[in-house]
Amino acid sequence: MDLFEKLLANRGPLGSHSHYADGYFAFPKLEGEISPRMVFRGKEVLTWSLNNYLGLANHPEVRKADADAAADWGMATPMGARIMSGNTTYHEKLEKELADFVQKPASLLLNFGYQGVVSIIDTLVDRRDVIVYDAESHACIIDGVRLHQGKRFVYQHNDIESLDKQLQRATRLVGETGGAILVITEGVFGMSGNLGKLREVVALKEKYEFRLMVDDAHGFGTMGTTGAGTGEHLEIQNGIDVYFSTFAKSMASIGAFVAAEAQVVEYLRYNMRSQIFAKSLPMPLVIGALKRLELLRTQPELKANLWKVVNALQSGLREKGFNIGTTESPVTPVLLNGQISDATSLTLDLRENYSIFCSIVVYPVVPKDVIMLRLIPTAVHTLDDVAETIAAFEAVSSKLDKGLYTKTPVAV
Amino acid sequence: MDLFEKLLANRGPLGSHSHYADGYFAFPKLEGEISPRMVFRGKEVLTWSLNNYLGLANHPEVRKADADAAADWGMATPMGARIMSGNTTYHEKLEKELADFVQKPASLLLNFGYQGVVSIIDTLVDRRDVIVYDAESHACIIDGVRLHQGKRFVYQHNDIESLDKQLQRATRLVGETGGAILVITEGVFGMSGNLGKLREVVALKEKYEFRLMVDDAHGFGTMGTTGAGTGEHLEIQNGIDVYFSTFAKSMASIGAFVAAEAQVVEYLRYNMRSQIFAKSLPMPLVIGALKRLELLRTQPELKANLWKVVNALQSGLREKGFNIGTTESPVTPVLLNGQISDATSLTLDLRENYSIFCSIVVYPVVPKDVIMLRLIPTAVHTLDDVAETIAAFEAVSSKLDKGLYTKTPVAV
Repeated sequence: MDLFEKLLANRGPLGSHSHYADGYFAFPKLEGEISPRMVFRGKEVLTWSLNNYLGLANHPEVRKADADAAADWGMATPMGARIMSGNTTYHEKLEKELADFVQKPASLLLNFGYQGVVSIIDTLVDRRDVIVYDAESHACIIDGVRLHQGKRFVYQHNDIESLDKQLQRATRLVGETGGAILVITEGVFGMSGNLGKLREVVALKEKYEFRLMVDDAHGFGTMGTTGAGTGEHLEIQNGIDVYFSTFAKSMASIGAFVAAEAQVVEYLRYNMRSQIFAKSLPMPLVIGALKRLELLRTQPELKANLWKVVNALQSGLREKGFNIGTTESPVTPVLLNGQISDATSLTLDLRENYSIFCSIVVYPVVPKDVIMLRLIPTAVHTLDDVAETIAAFEAVSSKLDKGLYTKTPVAV
Repeated sequence: MDLFEKLLANRGPLGSHSHYADGYFAFPKLEGEISPRMVFRGKEVLTWSLNNYLGLANHPEVRKADADAAADWGMATPMGARIMSGNTTYHEKLEKELADFVQKPASLLLNFGYQGVVSIIDTLVDRRDVIVYDAESHACIIDGVRLHQGKRFVYQHNDIESLDKQLQRATRLVGETGGAILVITEGVFGMSGNLGKLREVVALKEKYEFRLMVDDAHGFGTMGTTGAGTGEHLEIQNGIDVYFSTFAKSMASIGAFVAAEAQVVEYLRYNMRSQIFAKSLPMPLVIGALKRLELLRTQPELKANLWKVVNALQSGLREKGFNIGTTESPVTPVLLNGQISDATSLTLDLRENYSIFCSIVVYPVVPKDVIMLRLIPTAVHTLDDVAETIAAFEAVSSKLDKGLYTKTPVAV
């Protein structure tokens, strides 16, 4: 059988929608500077789709740092993998500052977050070990777990009883194999916005021997008194043994880092395949991250603004009867019942007639029977933006209730 | 057992050298503009370590494009995954130009090469399929193969008889499973510099039904009449079904792309986990890649200069009796017998007393009994650089023959 013929017989869960979704629901183009007001298909829209939590993407100091760094260094420097020829004093300075910021002894920069997580997991465990992980973990965690040659036990999302059971099983098993246990969960779950129950997870260390890895992509910069993340917010940062965050959200860039005790970071430095065998993070991204981190530290008003908008949006939506799930973070899902056709018609109406742009999330990112419109408030949204959005959501939701939306997917 | 205690009991193949290697042989810092003359520990060295094949890293037009793009856009734009909110007309323009350049109908930009390859492989196959791959494939190919839930058969490096045998086995197997066969190899093997025997591999399509994926990281821009890579050089570009290259070598940047027939690219667009669930390539990298590609197309003298330097270096080393293996590409390995202590002493001597900086490559990148000094000639090296380097290699090689180097690893 021909591989391509077999492949193309089934276009995949997202690909099966491409005939009407492409360029509109999938691969849309938002144009103009990153801000709450951008241009979609020639028209200004109020945008709630970008993980620019602290508004740093277009902050004048960030823009200047990015421009200056690229002018000074170009995008090529340094070349080669960090271990071979891609190391600089800037990379090391950023690592020190990131470690300090998240209250860990040491950190390691990663050339990209997704492959970083995959390789961290791959590096920490061998076939004797058992991974115990939350069922709603991000795709990069799942891919890392998929590389694992030993046993992996999944626990029900944020269900501590289920975790306890899996830790019992894992403990029995490593008693036989001579291995150890790694628990993996997230600080803020990027789709639901709820927090990993890190306090309860860490408390289980009294009962079982394991190390805890937390992907805090959405918590870094947004959660905790200083912005050090969900562990700080829940006052268990010390209980997180391997702390990860990407730069793709609050830091409005790419790249990532992992923080832990110094010897573990040193081990990762010398053993992570995606870092040893791939290019170092370019200098403008490193210097840009130093500036972003400085703003996280020195401008607490960014986070305060973010939360002002978050609180107004979430309480406003709840007051109007919207189901926004169990979020305790800036991530604001609006959960709808109905077919995907309802959701596409409603989203189209929101974009075309109310000039509100938010992302529509479908299977496999969320379960098959759930339709989610996800709003990401940021520090640069205003309370007027919030009011405008809630009014628009009320209008479209009323149409939805009245069955006014078409039952076939919209072609645009 | 504690995971960290177990982990730290063995520092890994590279980590076990860190006590003397760190900062010198591992994680060295090359300072200054990327060029053949850079600064290492305060002293100017002649550098042969950077995959800046065409000299684009510091090309004035590239530097200007990088600086202008970062000033115009910042490093944050676009935000989100390509499919959600990270698409732009620049990304699409670059995809079209890359496809044209490598003579394929379509291409897809990738946010990073390593995870790109891993996800391409993961996306193309299911558990019924069989992967047949070259034993010396890059780490990212191996990680992709490791994700595969079906059978994988490895063939001896560039050994067509071995490949034929594995294709026989694979053909029998997919006859039972109803799956298909994917063969994976490289255009230019980055350590040895030899070429994948793509002509012979493609010829096997007469005998077996399979699709061929080629990672041409080191061949893109350096090989073939137009620089379209190893397939063009060997006149079998049409036989490559899935063509991959990173931007980390000739393009002197980060990011990557995959090119194939349009429907297959469309399938990848909607199904690659590392692209659907991670951020899009930032605009300055996209605009910078457009400029680099323009120079590849319009300045054939860059490739001509590269090959002038390559030919002088390789023929010069061969004339002096050095074993540079079987390279047919710019990658120039100098293979030495002896213990790692010899290699470190010799490399130290080269750096400190001859001001020649090249990378030392050890296990697990090369087999345990091989020590390799790898030279990467570029278009911006001169024939004087070549002469100076060959003279230095003669001097240190003569010392090595006389047993003048210490037998214990050097502490620096």
